[in-house]
Amino acid sequence: MQRYPSQLFERAVEEFAKLPGVGSKTAMRLVLHLLRQDRKAVETFGQSIIRLRQEVKFCNICHNISDTDTCEICRNARRDHSCICVVENIQDVMAIENTQQYRGGYHVLGGVISPMDGIGPSDLQVESLVERVKAGDITEVILALSPTMEGDTTNFYLYRKLADSEVKISVIARGVAQNDELQYTDEVTLGRSIVNRTPFNVNI
Amino acid sequence: MQRYPSQLFERAVEEFAKLPGVGSKTAMRLVLHLLRQDRKAVETFGQSIIRLRQEVKFCNICHNISDTDTCEICRNARRDHSCICVVENIQDVMAIENTQQYRGGYHVLGGVISPMDGIGPSDLQVESLVERVKAGDITEVILALSPTMEGDTTNFYLYRKLADSEVKISVIARGVAQNDELQYTDEVTLGRSIVNRTPFNVNI
Repeated sequence: MQRYPSQLFERAVEEFAKLPGVGSKTAMRLVLHLLRQDRKAVETFGQSIIRLRQEVKFCNICHNISDTDTCEICRNARRDHSCICVVENIQDVMAIENTQQYRGGYHVLGGVISPMDGIGPSDLQVESLVERVKAGDITEVILALSPTMEGDTTNFYLYRKLADSEVKISVIARGVAQNDELQYTDEVTLGRSIVNRTPFNVNI
Repeated sequence: MQRYPSQLFERAVEEFAKLPGVGSKTAMRLVLHLLRQDRKAVETFGQSIIRLRQEVKFCNICHNISDTDTCEICRNARRDHSCICVVENIQDVMAIENTQQYRGGYHVLGGVISPMDGIGPSDLQVESLVERVKAGDITEVILALSPTMEGDTTNFYLYRKLADSEVKISVIARGVAQNDELQYTDEVTLGRSIVNRTPFNVNI
């Protein structure tokens, strides 16, 4: 067992080692790095962690993270709030925002249905999605979940839940990815890309 | 450029990304992990970082890190303080302590002389070592620096500095490492291991 010359040092190493993918060697390297940094900078780092957990909120409409009760996207009057894009997590919101191809709202489910991992519909933000759609003014729900079995299961579950409302339900296109080589593309994807072919468009 | 849905989130990601070996993707993963943790646990993490930098001291004798002005090793009356083991950094103290083969004191230089990196003797804790030796009661100085050109240069510099005192100066043994295969051992090491051969001892 490694003995550390300082309890404060040891505690900091232990705390870093709790982070995913950070072993005790890496944790020690990070702590030694911090010890060499400016005192003010290290305090800012520590404070940013404490404030993160204490002050970051989850949007009361779409459940994305936010500094305010309702997030910037949900508050943005120039966005089309009649369209909801359902995603698994916060990272997916950021990924879609980065494409600059979508100007509607979001709904962060918080995961997908996965019986293997013990995640059922009640663990996800499904009810609040159904309520948003029931509340009216929603014309389209885009299901943008992972193209996996769990994602498909969740898509199907949400479809059933929303089927009696009059909202249009769509899923993001599946097909060959940009720069993919066809010969190495899996059969399902390639087959689907032929079945769901779209009219040729010079601009894309 | 990635846009984050929360400034607090963004700031935390930026802070993590300043750590060595942590890119912005990893930083985001760590921050998302913290967001899912218990509020109290995250606060403990942040506080441990702040306290680390504010409260960890450097021992006024050997310059190892410590929670007190003089470190545990230097204060330990059962250790042999007539012997000083000179090491580059704190990790080396821990590594030697872990061997449980040494019961003397240490002196943390804070690096080795490296003109390429602009590190000269004045950047290291050389003067305080000379003073400790001059102050008397020291019978042996063990040079335990890296077996590199910089380490050898520093060894030679320290030897010259301490030569006029009557202290015994030794360097840690160099030779083949445990479980090394001789055919893959470099010439210098293998040659030295033959020149510096030691009497056979059944207990080792």
